[in-house]
Amino acid sequence: MALFSFTKTHQSSECAGRTGIFQTPHGAIETPVFMPVGTQATVKSLDPAEVHDIGFGIILSNTYHLYLRPGQEIVRQAGGLHSFMNWPGAILTDSGGFQVFSLGALRKVTDEGVVFRSHIDGSKHLMTPEKSIAIQEDLGADVIMAFDECLAYPSDHQAARAAMERTISWATRCHAAHQRPDQALFGIVQGVVYSDLRRECAQRLTELNFPGYAIGGLSVGEPKPMMYDMLEVTVPELPEDKPRYLMGVGSPDCLWEGVARGVDLFDCVFPTRIARNGTALTSQGRVIIRDARYAADFGPLDPECGCPTCTRFSRAYLRHLFKAGEILALRLTSLHNIYFLYKLMERIRTALRQGRFYEEKKAFWASYYNE
Amino acid sequence: MALFSFTKTHQSSECAGRTGIFQTPHGAIETPVFMPVGTQATVKSLDPAEVHDIGFGIILSNTYHLYLRPGQEIVRQAGGLHSFMNWPGAILTDSGGFQVFSLGALRKVTDEGVVFRSHIDGSKHLMTPEKSIAIQEDLGADVIMAFDECLAYPSDHQAARAAMERTISWATRCHAAHQRPDQALFGIVQGVVYSDLRRECAQRLTELNFPGYAIGGLSVGEPKPMMYDMLEVTVPELPEDKPRYLMGVGSPDCLWEGVARGVDLFDCVFPTRIARNGTALTSQGRVIIRDARYAADFGPLDPECGCPTCTRFSRAYLRHLFKAGEILALRLTSLHNIYFLYKLMERIRTALRQGRFYEEKKAFWASYYNE
Repeated sequence: MALFSFTKTHQSSECAGRTGIFQTPHGAIETPVFMPVGTQATVKSLDPAEVHDIGFGIILSNTYHLYLRPGQEIVRQAGGLHSFMNWPGAILTDSGGFQVFSLGALRKVTDEGVVFRSHIDGSKHLMTPEKSIAIQEDLGADVIMAFDECLAYPSDHQAARAAMERTISWATRCHAAHQRPDQALFGIVQGVVYSDLRRECAQRLTELNFPGYAIGGLSVGEPKPMMYDMLEVTVPELPEDKPRYLMGVGSPDCLWEGVARGVDLFDCVFPTRIARNGTALTSQGRVIIRDARYAADFGPLDPECGCPTCTRFSRAYLRHLFKAGEILALRLTSLHNIYFLYKLMERIRTALRQGRFYEEKKAFWASYYNE
Repeated sequence: MALFSFTKTHQSSECAGRTGIFQTPHGAIETPVFMPVGTQATVKSLDPAEVHDIGFGIILSNTYHLYLRPGQEIVRQAGGLHSFMNWPGAILTDSGGFQVFSLGALRKVTDEGVVFRSHIDGSKHLMTPEKSIAIQEDLGADVIMAFDECLAYPSDHQAARAAMERTISWATRCHAAHQRPDQALFGIVQGVVYSDLRRECAQRLTELNFPGYAIGGLSVGEPKPMMYDMLEVTVPELPEDKPRYLMGVGSPDCLWEGVARGVDLFDCVFPTRIARNGTALTSQGRVIIRDARYAADFGPLDPECGCPTCTRFSRAYLRHLFKAGEILALRLTSLHNIYFLYKLMERIRTALRQGRFYEEKKAFWASYYNE
């Protein structure tokens, strides 16, 4: 059997959404899927066993962060990222392109690569497509990303074209540099919010015949309808038989809208980040746990939830833990939030298969957004 | 069957140490036992299920903290502390005496009780023996403590006697106020480091016929040999057939020395506190995880340990998590440290039963303290 394969198991007749099986060296993943983010080789506050027990088969980690700390050499010596962090499932590493882009004034882009200063100690580094691939080979994730140039929104068309050209040139260099057969290298479509650039980038990357394609540079400040438009022009240019990954996107509305437009993979830090700030995702929308109204509320965060938090602890207890600054608050809420997204994706997959996608989407909206 | 009983199962012929079964409404506890501390209704960073899975059957929580936040009324409405924090085992609550003593300039002691200011918001409160009992009845722990006056070390004999008299007077008031039959109220022996006061306090409290006795006001700054002396004069004055609890003590050396002098229960925040600072207790002594020497050390924290941390994660990974400021570091090290103390107490109980207490103590010292 091939180390990687993507098999479409169902095509919705209602929308561009489909279900599939993405086979990796560390297991088969049902798509569409949401991937929790373990930036620094840990999904913040959670034990990898807890994440796996929910049902997650793939998580994301970050090349930029692991390169700076602990360094890819340590991870390589540990036997790779799976072994280092004791994660039994598949891993996807981002290339570092988005992170160095996020450094703003701390980085300078040339055709060769990006010179940047570490956010940790200010030390100077050069990241190139070849170096990103070498680091990702040391980290040993199942799915790795081409090093790209991600622009801010808004950017003018000329700058967007230049970044797209560089992204394609770098993707070509990444493709040439990459050697490990047990890793799938995905190209990343850029082009800011210009339809012509998105189409052209998708077409030209497709010529390189990547085993999967990411759509990057979205959810960086542009209005959501604009992001959806970009998906609508990009996805049709990508091969039908390869997984499509919308980077850095994971709010419930975007998951529904992304799936409807043919996206297979998603990731986002938001469920764990807002959890640590005391916000829970529930079937009735967001719950701000510190709110005084929950002081004596002995029901679960979400009455419809079967997660290890909701089946064992009350809103009153969670509120107490947050008010008291207790770490367990962050754990229990993070666990709940990623469980919520796991179950949401399960519901979306079932809805696609049963031809009830829009019906379920509407029901979710009514309950979650109270619309 | 009585709700509470203490059955001595073995008396060491080598020392005053003994093994026993302390029966509570929430299970039977093998003694000598170390109790992890869940100050604010959570053993810091840990899920109660993790603590219970190690084997712990009793934990401690704090009346002072829970009175201030979330308030005993919330806990009572939740069905008591067991239900509030979803802890299936037994719970012991401290009376608040030690905590208000620790407030220093923020408290004023009279015969009526202690007026203190909250460390959270500066609000003014009066704690009396009767109020401490009422709060502890609302919290609903299995074992509760009399409200005592704990002095600092050093204190002169006159002040120590006055505090002892007040402690006995307050213990009498607590005894009179306490009503719940499903709670065992323990008296607390005070007397700073004066043998005559310790003996007298133990004798006079014994007349009140408490179901168990605590020894308080130790490990507050006095040299350890002085603490051991106080145990040697106090324990013989306490009833043979009642559990003896040495408050706030839990370092490995003190556990061995305390058991040797007839102590049955211990508690201390230190294993979880030092864990959060990056220090692990191991069979070879303390390991400072952030140390650079562990950067590429892919072995477990403790090669002799079977805990969920040591069986799954390396020193290199834990060091990375600490350096990166990740919460999982605190969890995994806390879990390891309380597991270490659980196994140490198991070893001590076995050594007592097998008549090899001093042999095992010597072996532990050789390995842990490298002596």
